[in-house]
Amino acid sequence: MRVAVLGVGLIGGSVGLAARERCGATVTGYDTFPEALATAVHTGALDAAAPSLAGAVADAEAVFVAVPVAQLPNTVAQALAGARADCVITDVGSTKRAIVAAHDDPRFVGGHPLAGAETSGVRHARADLFEGATWYLTPTQRTSGVLYERLHRLLRGLGARPAAIDADTHDRILAAVSHLPHVLANVLVAQAAQVLAAGEERLPATGPSFRDATRVAGAPSRIWRDIYMSNRDALVGQLDGAIDRLRGVREALAAADAEGIVA
Amino acid sequence: MRVAVLGVGLIGGSVGLAARERCGATVTGYDTFPEALATAVHTGALDAAAPSLAGAVADAEAVFVAVPVAQLPNTVAQALAGARADCVITDVGSTKRAIVAAHDDPRFVGGHPLAGAETSGVRHARADLFEGATWYLTPTQRTSGVLYERLHRLLRGLGARPAAIDADTHDRILAAVSHLPHVLANVLVAQAAQVLAAGEERLPATGPSFRDATRVAGAPSRIWRDIYMSNRDALVGQLDGAIDRLRGVREALAAADAEGIVA
Repeated sequence: MRVAVLGVGLIGGSVGLAARERCGATVTGYDTFPEALATAVHTGALDAAAPSLAGAVADAEAVFVAVPVAQLPNTVAQALAGARADCVITDVGSTKRAIVAAHDDPRFVGGHPLAGAETSGVRHARADLFEGATWYLTPTQRTSGVLYERLHRLLRGLGARPAAIDADTHDRILAAVSHLPHVLANVLVAQAAQVLAAGEERLPATGPSFRDATRVAGAPSRIWRDIYMSNRDALVGQLDGAIDRLRGVREALAAADAEGIVA
Repeated sequence: MRVAVLGVGLIGGSVGLAARERCGATVTGYDTFPEALATAVHTGALDAAAPSLAGAVADAEAVFVAVPVAQLPNTVAQALAGARADCVITDVGSTKRAIVAAHDDPRFVGGHPLAGAETSGVRHARADLFEGATWYLTPTQRTSGVLYERLHRLLRGLGARPAAIDADTHDRILAAVSHLPHVLANVLVAQAAQVLAAGEERLPATGPSFRDATRVAGAPSRIWRDIYMSNRDALVGQLDGAIDRLRGVREALAAADAEGIVA
């Protein structure tokens, strides 16, 4: 299988490593940062670096678009324009409605692996990043069944568990289980920093629970800003829900309503 | 060293195991639940079960009060009444102002190990639970220096890192790094449950970040209700701060203010 990866960061690089090591695929990559491309070839995430996006996709049977969310629409459009008629093209963006609505092409299947890390960059790529991970796919009525099946098989080869879902449901669920948790992790860090700055104490050895609760707050802000922006309505709804619940706890606590707190 | 443990749950049981295995102490315990006491003797957390609280503390050189927060004031008072004049008495409660203000005795030193788990009960006790963990102590002007030093040495023997702090600062920091995170973990679970109940989807394999962010939501509600109640003012302040920050994110998002979201 000839695979192209557009954007060789943590996810693109891990797709390359896994496709080469686990599926025996030949992987060609393209990235607007020449350093990332060179590192990807050096670390074995790519067989070859292409001089252009068109060059990377021209001969591919499967294309993974792994650029930041804000660049997805344009990059997927270029990939569709340059790829063969029998090539399947997917993305790995964290939200799915916008990109799926924008590309009504039988060759395009939206995707989203529930894998990642608070690190970024191809240097942190791993061939086992997708092992056991849910990888959502958003086929539509127009999607080619043959190409969908090829992508599904390839993802299983990467170690992932592909699961079909419609784009609306995907974005609504992810707002609750990924985007809201990321906002709350940042709120926790900001609140703790404020308390510690107000006193003479250093951050205590807070133990694993605070570290776990705030781990994702270390992820790059600009990547998350774009994810939030691409899922605004669902995330605003989640924030409203969270604010209501916190107000409820606050009122129960202020009123010393013990059973209200338990509830 | 003769040690008494009052309340043999996860923390009390782990104190017993660690004191016996790592310090060679003789540990006597008491609990109002006979089953917990029997299990503690059976699993090696105690050398012996005492028939009463007074019997457990009568001959002890150090007493750990490890009962739920709501029962602390009464149990510490009974321990002070029954213990020798040269016995150090400490508790392991998650908040410190109330208990420290209530017991102005040179033998009492408030304490709080930053260790625990989402499990509870002596069956989950471990001799290494305190390994490397900060163990806060709240000595006051009246605290006996000799007894404080004995407790400090004993805690180091358990593997912990004792650190002195005043009770006000302790409660303010813990509201930010422990009690607020626990509220938010429960909010996340409630929000996710609502989204999933509204659709036909099952909880997806959400990956480690959601699991980590919500792990503490599994801890017993009644124990946490009492912790919240004993730190009401500080936690209300933290909740107000968190609500303000969430409102700020919500407004930035609703206004598509990309730089506001990054900030």
